[in-house]
Amino acid sequence: MAGSVFGKIFRISTWGESHGKGIGVVIDGCPAGLSLCEEDIQPYLDRRKPGRNEFATPRSESDTAEILSGVFEGVTTGTPISIAIMNKTQRSGDYSEIAQVYRPGHADYTFDQKYGIRDYRGGGRSSGRETAARVAAGAVAAKLLGEMGIAVNAYTLSIGDIRADVQNGDIALALSDPLCMPDSGASRRAQEYLRGLREKGDSAGGVVECVIKGIPAGLGETVFDKYDARLAQAVMSIGAVKGVEIGAGFEAAGKCGTEDNDPFLISADGTVTKGSNNSGGILGGMSDGISPVVVRAAFKATPSVSAAQRTVDKDGAEREIRIKGRHDPVIVPRAVVVVEAMAALVTADLLLENMAARLDGIKRFYTR
Amino acid sequence: MAGSVFGKIFRISTWGESHGKGIGVVIDGCPAGLSLCEEDIQPYLDRRKPGRNEFATPRSESDTAEILSGVFEGVTTGTPISIAIMNKTQRSGDYSEIAQVYRPGHADYTFDQKYGIRDYRGGGRSSGRETAARVAAGAVAAKLLGEMGIAVNAYTLSIGDIRADVQNGDIALALSDPLCMPDSGASRRAQEYLRGLREKGDSAGGVVECVIKGIPAGLGETVFDKYDARLAQAVMSIGAVKGVEIGAGFEAAGKCGTEDNDPFLISADGTVTKGSNNSGGILGGMSDGISPVVVRAAFKATPSVSAAQRTVDKDGAEREIRIKGRHDPVIVPRAVVVVEAMAALVTADLLLENMAARLDGIKRFYTR
Amino acid sequence: MAGSVFGKIFRISTWGESHGKGIGVVIDGCPAGLSLCEEDIQPYLDRRKPGRNEFATPRSESDTAEILSGVFEGVTTGTPISIAIMNKTQRSGDYSEIAQVYRPGHADYTFDQKYGIRDYRGGGRSSGRETAARVAAGAVAAKLLGEMGIAVNAYTLSIGDIRADVQNGDIALALSDPLCMPDSGASRRAQEYLRGLREKGDSAGGVVECVIKGIPAGLGETVFDKYDARLAQAVMSIGAVKGVEIGAGFEAAGKCGTEDNDPFLISADGTVTKGSNNSGGILGGMSDGISPVVVRAAFKATPSVSAAQRTVDKDGAEREIRIKGRHDPVIVPRAVVVVEAMAALVTADLLLENMAARLDGIKRFYTR
Amino acid sequence: MAGSVFGKIFRISTWGESHGKGIGVVIDGCPAGLSLCEEDIQPYLDRRKPGRNEFATPRSESDTAEILSGVFEGVTTGTPISIAIMNKTQRSGDYSEIAQVYRPGHADYTFDQKYGIRDYRGGGRSSGRETAARVAAGAVAAKLLGEMGIAVNAYTLSIGDIRADVQNGDIALALSDPLCMPDSGASRRAQEYLRGLREKGDSAGGVVECVIKGIPAGLGETVFDKYDARLAQAVMSIGAVKGVEIGAGFEAAGKCGTEDNDPFLISADGTVTKGSNNSGGILGGMSDGISPVVVRAAFKATPSVSAAQRTVDKDGAEREIRIKGRHDPVIVPRAVVVVEAMAALVTADLLLENMAARLDGIKRFYTR
Repeated sequence: MAGSVFGKIFRISTWGESHGKGIGVVIDGCPAGLSLCEEDIQPYLDRRKPGRNEFATPRSESDTAEILSGVFEGVTTGTPISIAIMNKTQRSGDYSEIAQVYRPGHADYTFDQKYGIRDYRGGGRSSGRETAARVAAGAVAAKLLGEMGIAVNAYTLSIGDIRADVQNGDIALALSDPLCMPDSGASRRAQEYLRGLREKGDSAGGVVECVIKGIPAGLGETVFDKYDARLAQAVMSIGAVKGVEIGAGFEAAGKCGTEDNDPFLISADGTVTKGSNNSGGILGGMSDGISPVVVRAAFKATPSVSAAQRTVDKDGAEREIRIKGRHDPVIVPRAVVVVEAMAALVTADLLLENMAARLDGIKRFYTR
Repeated sequence: MAGSVFGKIFRISTWGESHGKGIGVVIDGCPAGLSLCEEDIQPYLDRRKPGRNEFATPRSESDTAEILSGVFEGVTTGTPISIAIMNKTQRSGDYSEIAQVYRPGHADYTFDQKYGIRDYRGGGRSSGRETAARVAAGAVAAKLLGEMGIAVNAYTLSIGDIRADVQNGDIALALSDPLCMPDSGASRRAQEYLRGLREKGDSAGGVVECVIKGIPAGLGETVFDKYDARLAQAVMSIGAVKGVEIGAGFEAAGKCGTEDNDPFLISADGTVTKGSNNSGGILGGMSDGISPVVVRAAFKATPSVSAAQRTVDKDGAEREIRIKGRHDPVIVPRAVVVVEAMAALVTADLLLENMAARLDGIKRFYTR
Repeated sequence: MAGSVFGKIFRISTWGESHGKGIGVVIDGCPAGLSLCEEDIQPYLDRRKPGRNEFATPRSESDTAEILSGVFEGVTTGTPISIAIMNKTQRSGDYSEIAQVYRPGHADYTFDQKYGIRDYRGGGRSSGRETAARVAAGAVAAKLLGEMGIAVNAYTLSIGDIRADVQNGDIALALSDPLCMPDSGASRRAQEYLRGLREKGDSAGGVVECVIKGIPAGLGETVFDKYDARLAQAVMSIGAVKGVEIGAGFEAAGKCGTEDNDPFLISADGTVTKGSNNSGGILGGMSDGISPVVVRAAFKATPSVSAAQRTVDKDGAEREIRIKGRHDPVIVPRAVVVVEAMAALVTADLLLENMAARLDGIKRFYTR
Repeated sequence: MAGSVFGKIFRISTWGESHGKGIGVVIDGCPAGLSLCEEDIQPYLDRRKPGRNEFATPRSESDTAEILSGVFEGVTTGTPISIAIMNKTQRSGDYSEIAQVYRPGHADYTFDQKYGIRDYRGGGRSSGRETAARVAAGAVAAKLLGEMGIAVNAYTLSIGDIRADVQNGDIALALSDPLCMPDSGASRRAQEYLRGLREKGDSAGGVVECVIKGIPAGLGETVFDKYDARLAQAVMSIGAVKGVEIGAGFEAAGKCGTEDNDPFLISADGTVTKGSNNSGGILGGMSDGISPVVVRAAFKATPSVSAAQRTVDKDGAEREIRIKGRHDPVIVPRAVVVVEAMAALVTADLLLENMAARLDGIKRFYTR
């Protein structure tokens, strides 16, 4: 129950600290019969990997995933899939300051308050490195979803106040853009902005948008386990996320009912469609099977800044801290794939959960 | 797993439809020894009750809670607390249109897609009436939290574009304000705005803010069960919510690290305090025990509008619909106590979960 | 988490005390589309009802089930099914002794130790009356299983040392036999035995056997959620059960491998069959789809005996107690349907859980 | 949900196959502040290790545990503890027969039926090797329980029909006895019996008894999560277990109420005690805090026998099989520590769960 287990049917259990022996995940509940190998996972990890460009921490980690179980002759067997990413650089650097002085905006203080002990090396369990295990699991979920014709894609929507023009942008562009923006003009402006902040020892936040396409109607459970509610937990659980939106999100609060309601229409081929997608593809907590699901996450600025900050130490004295070393001036581009992973995990779980919804479906399943 | 169960230790299971025999909740996991009677629950239900003023649907329901189990001689026994709210008015009105024609912005279409059957009377299980069961359970959680010195308070922050001045407002005022705003000037302007919309057969949305005070440090589990992540699921699971924020929320995405980081300070009495609360009282997913937890929810406009809307029916034909009857022109004021209830449920659950975090605490507990 | 919730997909939450307002259950996760009405549930409750003959407590309770939600026009909607059984006789008898003096073999002492408070009227939550809620839920599970061609049948295998000859008996007979035995000769001897015990103010125990037929292969999850493991929890959770067996059970411990292993054979029609069923229809925790699942439960004697017993009271003084009133001289016949209900609940849950096991099944499900 | 996750607060997730890269476990929910190192775990694994004497399979595996996370400077941090046991001998032997022909009494057939694919090398996930991960986790649970003064000890009660005299035996003896019996006379007879069986290519079963001492009163949750119910699931989930008993177990079914009820007494020092322990330390599903908890598990004979057996192959043809290689002639002695591990895991989980039972305890906990 301590918080590192996620999902109900497609369930994952993650482990590991920033500067321990490694990190990893055990997936229990991945269906049998899925082709899977390390090459399916590595591209996802590479998108999260540090050191890819000037806007990411230069820590050198290959982040190589190894599948330890659950796959036989290249195919999943329905048994737990254990994936380990061993740390290459367990820097035994000088952690005397971080061990004593609480960094503002970080989890140092609350970890000590809750547990009375903390692996302070590189942030320990609260390091962003923890998300590599989510990404590895998310890659498996995405592979499963791909088999069902479901695609999950995220990108950087904004950094600071600089917002990408997604309407006229190209989502595919985001995969190669250094800031994962689907708008190269906005990306260039954001890069300038980040260079300026870095010079001042400061950092920026931003917004990630994630779009899920090809979802059948009816995913999500009514009341507490609505698709949007599960996405909200999944995305808010990523460190540094301070807000989550579905569809029109906070803008919906300012709209009238006649503006916000998406009209249902009949398309040329006779299927049901919608005139707009303010709902973000979800009504009453269930996917409508018509429009893509759209979720957005607001990330705060990287709290590790080299500018001087006021804080306190373990002994209750006020201190000034300047965080040393080079840190990500913005976490957003590396977080894009983390949002994608969490959305894939939720969607895979609900896809499996939904199979039990109707007696006719159950009968059809068992009378093949 | 179907979605009407919430929580891990303080766990609730809700049931009921809008126009069925009633609605209710079973709470499994409320600690023994809590004084509890119907009078503790009723004031919460009254805040959600329809028909209180011109801005709420005039349906006449007393919403009277009855405790059926789990309380003996006025005190909880640790066994399940069953609370029922029987429906007084099971209107056997004319539902032929709602049975056939999918209302835009409602769950009619997705319910049919998922289950193939739907209690369409008054929205059935997807009616806002479902939230009465949450509020009843939330009242019990709030009573428990009160015993621990924890207070959960929500209010209307904005309706449409009209925002309350909370800084100079009076939270207590919200309890008597017809729109639950802590700023009577803003409330008057919002009332005008709503009257105008109602005349046009339209509706409005808004934002609810909830503040939790008196929380010990360390509530919330790291990684997936962070306090903010659990709040996000809880609040997003309320029908019509399209966005959730913690602390600075989406504004944090536009701030620099040096602006957003809350400095730690030592207060006059030697305890640790903070210079600001952009984090919303949560760091690394755990309460800091210093600042209140602040969560906001964006509600879309009530989808039931009497203006004409385009839609389709069960037979796949395009239709025009005008939703009859008087509906809430805005759901926000009645939703305030629902947000409060969900925040209380999450907080109570994490309060209990946190007890297992440390060996020294466990030893102290068992060696009384 | 407090213990009154059971199941993962087909999940139930029970509530109620022996002499409170009533007892009941909420089922979350029953698939939509199942025909269901009170008449489906009542026959199950009638089999558990007190006062049916001289071997059951004469308490007069009609045990009438009322469905409060989740069923629309006679069909389940996929939303929670709330079933209430209101108590008719909330005897306000004299409970001063039971409130003070701990009855041996009962839960009075441990309830006080755990919770510090206890509804002592009629045993409160630890009363056998709690099982009526399980039976109501089990009736719904059995209806669902019936739709899939799965039948769950239990009967009394033995009372004291008197064992029914099941091989030559008639299972159908058990439904009308006063002791639910499928062997009228054994039943007559057991009735004599029970009359003798009752005269001495004593009571008897016995064994219930339950057979589940028509199960597809593959139900049950490997490792911790094996079919047999889930049955073991389900059956051991019934008050007074002290042992659970699958197939050859404890006898298997004395057999050699060559005796115990069930040979696989090819039957005349070319399908796989088995030469014996020592395994009780389960191998590696999964149903084999060939043989019935066989589970047995050992019930201790009713602890309520009128003979004098040594015990202690709340104040720590030794006392002698003679339990007044007429009690079941044996609980076994009334427990038969409870075992059946628990087996049905486990089987229904695993039936739904199993649908997510294989990618080919998932693909077939979604590409109808 | 697929079955390799166990526990609620002290929750484990196991992985690995017999002849894959390794096996392991992630523990989420172990409290912070527990001293822990590999040396705490290894002795438990050594008790389960193959090749210790003539009665165990001679496979050469060092079964060395490595802690990969969750421990910092020798102390648990409250974050997930990942333990890996890498396989040394991934024998690439000839598995053509086991891949094609279903071994009676094994899970080969049901695995294929459920998943359509199976890692057949050495039994894959259904191998007894899976239990090493349970034992590693159980060692951590046992260390935690030890800190609380709770001791869990198991031993071989019987092999075939040869039963140890536990009353006059010495439990400590079991740790050094080759069959883990606390009675050297019975052990010698059992050894003779096993040698005889082995010559005939046959195998034996037996019974393991486990005693848990030092438990506070009140562990276990009423209704479905009773201490005995959780133990029953835990123990029945071990491969080859066909029956579980608590206290007097199946014998209780033959006893009268006056025989079976354990009288409460006041001991010389004024505390409550009991005159017998037929209940096995549990009343109403909760530990009484007076007597040890006693649980017994019946193990069937090792299904791997070298004598000829009738069976079928994947293509639906009848076959004769003789299982090659040297196998354990009895699994019981190696299973003793597995039962101990499962009992420790359940007890640790319920110890933590119980902390939330009472308001006065919660208040005391938070107002230190």
